Order: sequence, then C-alpha cells, then structure tokens
Amino acid sequence: MYTVCVRDHMMIAHSFTGEVFGPAQRLHGATYVVDVEFRRAELDADGIVVDIGLAAAALRDTLAALNYRNLDAEAEFSGRNTTTEFLARLVFGRLQQAIRAGALGASATAVGSMRVTLHESHVAWAAYESELA
Amino acid sequence: MYTVCVRDHMMIAHSFTGEVFGPAQRLHGATYVVDVEFRRAELDADGIVVDIGLAAAALRDTLAALNYRNLDAEAEFSGRNTTTEFLARLVFGRLQQAIRAGALGASATAVGSMRVTLHESHVAWAAYESELA
Amino acid sequence: MYTVCVRDHMMIAHSFTGEVFGPAQRLHGATYVVDVEFRRAELDADGIVVDIGLAAAALRDTLAALNYRNLDAEAEFSGRNTTTEFLARLVFGRLQQAIRAGALGASATAVGSMRVTLHESHVAWAAYESELA
Amino acid sequence: MYTVCVRDHMMIAHSFTGEVFGPAQRLHGATYVVDVEFRRAELDADGIVVDIGLAAAALRDTLAALNYRNLDAEAEFSGRNTTTEFLARLVFGRLQQAIRAGALGASATAVGSMRVTLHESHVAWAAYESELA
Amino acid sequence: MYTVCVRDHMMIAHSFTGEVFGPAQRLHGATYVVDVEFRRAELDADGIVVDIGLAAAALRDTLAALNYRNLDAEAEFSGRNTTTEFLARLVFGRLQQAIRAGALGASATAVGSMRVTLHESHVAWAAYESELA
Amino acid sequence: MYTVCVRDHMMIAHSFTGEVFGPAQRLHGATYVVDVEFRRAELDADGIVVDIGLAAAALRDTLAALNYRNLDAEAEFSGRNTTTEFLARLVFGRLQQAIRAGALGASATAVGSMRVTLHESHVAWAAYESELA
Repeated sequence: MYTVCVRDHMMIAHSFTGEVFGPAQRLHGATYVVDVEFRRAELDADGIVVDIGLAAAALRDTLAALNYRNLDAEAEFSGRNTTTEFLARLVFGRLQQAIRAGALGASATAVGSMRVTLHESHVAWAAYESELA
Repeated sequence: MYTVCVRDHMMIAHSFTGEVFGPAQRLHGATYVVDVEFRRAELDADGIVVDIGLAAAALRDTLAALNYRNLDAEAEFSGRNTTTEFLARLVFGRLQQAIRAGALGASATAVGSMRVTLHESHVAWAAYESELA
Repeated sequence: MYTVCVRDHMMIAHSFTGEVFGPAQRLHGATYVVDVEFRRAELDADGIVVDIGLAAAALRDTLAALNYRNLDAEAEFSGRNTTTEFLARLVFGRLQQAIRAGALGASATAVGSMRVTLHESHVAWAAYESELA
Repeated sequence: MYTVCVRDHMMIAHSFTGEVFGPAQRLHGATYVVDVEFRRAELDADGIVVDIGLAAAALRDTLAALNYRNLDAEAEFSGRNTTTEFLARLVFGRLQQAIRAGALGASATAVGSMRVTLHESHVAWAAYESELA
Repeated sequence: MYTVCVRDHMMIAHSFTGEVFGPAQRLHGATYVVDVEFRRAELDADGIVVDIGLAAAALRDTLAALNYRNLDAEAEFSGRNTTTEFLARLVFGRLQQAIRAGALGASATAVGSMRVTLHESHVAWAAYESELA
Repeated sequence: MYTVCVRDHMMIAHSFTGEVFGPAQRLHGATYVVDVEFRRAELDADGIVVDIGLAAAALRDTLAALNYRNLDAEAEFSGRNTTTEFLARLVFGRLQQAIRAGALGASATAVGSMRVTLHESHVAWAAYESELA
C-alpha cells in the first residue's frame, strides 16, 4: 500500500451547541492544519500515487470555500455542530467529489482510500478516513 | 472511521535488564510525549468521537500515576522491563478501564479502538493499538 | 543569558479592518499556540530561571481571559485590529503585570526580558519581545 | 499490535521524466526524513518489538547506499522515476532483506509488517507499507 | 520589538568543493524549508509588521528562481559553494531588494532587520540575519 | 550574522532539591533534545560557519558523557540541581572547551557565540547562550 500526503490550512470561526462543549459554546475560532492522505495499492505509470500538484490545488480549492469564514453563518451548516470531526468528514467528501470530477487527473481514479486529518492545536487533532466506493 | 487524538506527557526514570539494551541497562530516564487516539465508526449526537475535555483529563490522570517516578521502585513493575512498548500498552489498558468506568462519558462506550503512542525523542517512538472488546 | 520557555494555546474569533487583510476582513478565527520565553542573566538559588509551574499557570490564566471568545465583541479591543502581532504584545503586557504582582514568585522579579510568540499556522507566526523595565 | 519507529534522513539529487512532474523534470534534489515503523502482535522476551539500536543501524546503512548521490547516475535506477513513493518502496525492500539476513537480530523475524515514510518537505510526504511475507 | 515569520520551501541539487564536505562533494540535493522573519520596533497603522500576503508572495517568487534547479549549472554560482549558510544570505539579499523595490508595500520600508533560516533536515539548519541598512 | 545548528539528544535520570520543584523532587527522568547553534560574523573560506560533521560529533561526544546516567550519582553534580537550565550551561561549557581544543577544526575558532537549547517536552525548553571569550 502506497500513501501520498499533502498539507494546507484554513482559519474559521464557529460556536457549538451542547453542554459537552463548555466554553466552546461561545463564538470562537480555530486554525486547522489539514493533512490529506491518498492511498492505492500500486503506483501509476509515472511512478506516483497522485499528481501532487493537482492534489495540492484541489485541497487549496476545497479549503478556500471554508477559509476566513464564520461557519455559524453558512446556511449549509445550519443546525449542525461544525466540530473538527465533522469538518474532517466534510473535506473528505469534497475531495472525493473532486477526484470523481477528474480534478486530480485520470490516474487518481485508482486511489482506493483517503484520510483527512485536521490539527487544531499542538495537543489535539481529529481525522476521517474511508474507502472510496 | 473517525479519530480524535489528545496529547500530554510524563517524565520518568527506569533501567532495563538484558544485554540488548546496552547503556540503557543503567538507571536513566525519559520524557514521553503521549498521543492517545480514540476511534469509532460514527459520531455521537453532539457530532464528536469523545468529549475531548474528559479525554484529556483521563489521560492526565493516567499519566499522573506514573509521572515524576522511578519505575524501578514501583512494586507493580518488579521484574519487568518498562520499555516504551510496555508503557504504551499500560497506558492503553488504564484508559480502557477509564472508558469502562464511565470517566469519558456515556458516549465513549461506542469507541471501537484506541492507539497510544509514546514519543521518546525526535528520532524514536513506540505505540500500542487494539480493538476495545 | 538563560532562557526558559513554556507553551500553551488559545482559540479565538475576530475580523480585521483594512484592505490589506483581504479575505481576513471577514469574521474568521485562529488557534494560537503561544510560547513565552523568560530570560535572565543568572540562575536563582534553586538553579532555575523561573518556577516553571507558576509560569505555566500564569500563561494559562492569561490565555483563559481571551480563549473561546470573539475578540470583536470585547469592549477593550473596540476599534483595534487584534492581529497576531497585537495579541503577542497584549499577552506580553499581561504576563509582565503578573510578574510584578508576584504571581511567578519572588525570584521572577530578576527576569530581565521576555519574548511571546504566537504560532497561527504551520507557515506563519508573530512575536513581541522586550526588556522588562 | 505494537509498533516501534526510528528516524533518519538522506539528501539526494534526481530528475523525473513525464509532463506530470512540471519543473521537477529538471535536475533538482531533496532531503528525505525517513521514518520506519516495525509492527508485531506480541513483544519478545525482552519486552520490545525490535532492538532499536540494530534497527537504527540498519536504517543508517540502507540510506548510506543512497545518500549524497545523484540517483539519475545510478545504473540500478536507469529508466525509472525515483519518486518519493518509489524510494519508500525501495527502502522497505532493503530493510526487509536486512531482517531476513539477521541484521536486526533473531527476534526481528517476528516483525509482521513495516511502514516506511519519506517526508520531503513540511507540506508533503509519501509512504509504503506491507505485511512481511 | 515585533517579528512576523513566513515559511515556504525549495528543492535543489548541488555539490561542494573542499575535503571538509566529505561525501557531500558528490552531486546530491536538499529540501530547504525556509523561514523569513521580519522585525520592526513599532507596528504600522494597520497593526502589522508587514503585509503577510505580500511577504509570502515575495518569498515564493524568490525561491522560484532557485527551486527545482541544479545550482552547479547556474552561472551566477560558478566557483562558489552553495552551502546552506550561503543560500540563507542569498535569499536574505533578494528579499532585501524586494522590500526596497516596494514589493512588500510601502509600510515594509520600516522593517529594521530580517533573519532567513534554511532547515535542511530534522537535525540541522543554518541562518543569516542582519539589520536592513 | 550567520548561524548553524545541529541537533542530538540524551536520556537521563535525576531528582531536585527544593520545594519549588514539587513532584520533581522525586527521582524521575527526561529526554533532552539538544540544539546547538554556532554563530559568526563571516563565513570561512569553504563558505561555512563550522564543519557540521565535526560539530555533530562534538555534540554526540559531549552528550555521551551524560547519556543513560542517573545524574544524582555523578560526583561532579553533588549538591547541585541539574535543572534544564544548568545542563544547557554545562553542555555549552564543554562544547566551548571542544572548540578551544581544536575538535571542531581550525576554522571554528572564529565562532563568536553559541546557544544551547534543551527541549524537555512538547511544552517546555530551556537555553543558555553567550559570547565565546
């Protein structure tokens, strides 16, 4: 199994609903340093897992739609807690769509699974990973 | 699969028995920077893997029982090499007990597996991971 | 010259005023991983720069007053851009007050200078440093 | 499952063939910070996954055969793109041979799988992992 | 004193002349993760040291002129050892020119000093720093 | 001003005397990841601050005299608290002697100052720096 990982980041504001969140129920924010791992069983004809330039561009575009925003004000997240876990799954889904749409090149359709990790501080991170159906 | 990770550290003294350990047979010490990953298939009703505040507190309590101690003088480790691997398994077991005892909240009983990693320097680490029966 | 550094973090929301900030004029947020360096020419009688436990507690208390908040809604920052640079200076000033108030112990009055660094992502940070008058 | 990881690095020159590589088709170079993870189900009689001294030495020897070289000029890589993914697989294979040859000690024959990760910058890495047949 | 730092990287090939370099006399390569610190005594009217977007762009442009190249083949480096120290000084000089040319905005002319650090591995880095005359 | 830095580590046991140390008055231990910075105004004829191979070897030798030891049992530290600050100063002094003895080569006599940093965890470090008389 081969893996390639690219890193970028985003800076957002949000608040959470639920006593479990304590002071994080207040409007606050986070920098998420985002790692995306692409995995496949065999390399393509060029000897790579994925075109790292296209992968980095797809991640940048995906984060740009969230970056420098108050997620509480985005209609699509209405009534949802935009936890680190939730955002990891969201970024995963959008990158999966980008692969299907060909944004990472023809070879990327052989990527078998992905893992998206959001580092929120020097002491905490969350991730979502799955096979690509 | 979702993962949440929290980090803390401990500083202990110990020595090892066995020629394989070379100079580490002498009494020495280590800082272990400890990462604990909690994994589950679906998020709970709050949109999280585990209450990160309770998780961090459980890790801190677990490490407090070992921190600033000479492990050679602890009766429970008599006749054992407290290697990084062994300590990763030990921390894993104690956190598993904390989950069962409810210390991480009711939702944490759905955590399906854990991984405990002990970083002992900038060039070496060890980990233990397992399903939670 | 001796230096001791302690690290903690905070997560805040804010927005900026001024075209130079581009998309960061929108309400967004940041995790700041905060390093505080204490410097003095000679060690005290215990062989330390500062009581690291008191230093960490003072930093935690200082950040707690900002943590999990929307800085745009704090009256004291009205009409100010709470840039990373500004916040580094703010944390510096509050820790300087804590030292003067004795919160870091009697020995800490010999600390000659401090440096406060706020890491806002894996690719950017800002700092403020000064002598302690 | 237990894991032990050791880290070292190498510095090489190479170029790539194929439009997908863009400017990396020119002769350039890379520092690869290399992590090798050794995994097994149970610890040996000494309480370890592998003799970390022998593991570090085997990694150092493996990298020494590549270090400070222009990979384009090495006959064994003729006609191949020595991508990060390819080099991760190469290092994996050579360490597998070292284990079989006894270079990591008798106990290491119980290592069930390995993972080799090559970090090429602060924003990209690649890895190869597999069971040891 | 305020500091702002931005990070980027480049990947180059080169060789060194002189017995002191040992195996690094052979053609090899390096990834340099580059940190540039901008320092000034007081913040500008926007509350910043420098426009971080312009600073990052200037660094990217400066590194682009070196990136994915064999420095041995660049006429300007003929007869010179392009050591990490030398390259830190080179990047410093080019960014100093960019500031003078206005590429970092009018406010950047108040930057009093800079420091350029090139990380070449997890165990070594070099830097050049100076006042801006 | 040019700087070159090399990194290594050591693992020791010790205890402290004095109420200020709290639980660290018990026998415990630490991993110290050690950075040594060498600074000089101009590069030597080879274009370097110091022979990085000799510098790394001198650091390794210096740490070997402390590594895998219980500092409480070393006669030279009798009645002293071997704090992180103290050890940074100790390593500084021994490397200064190594430079004077020629262990880092003739060119190293032009090194004007050094800084030794000991990282004791992911949240704390201490350093000692000085001119070289």
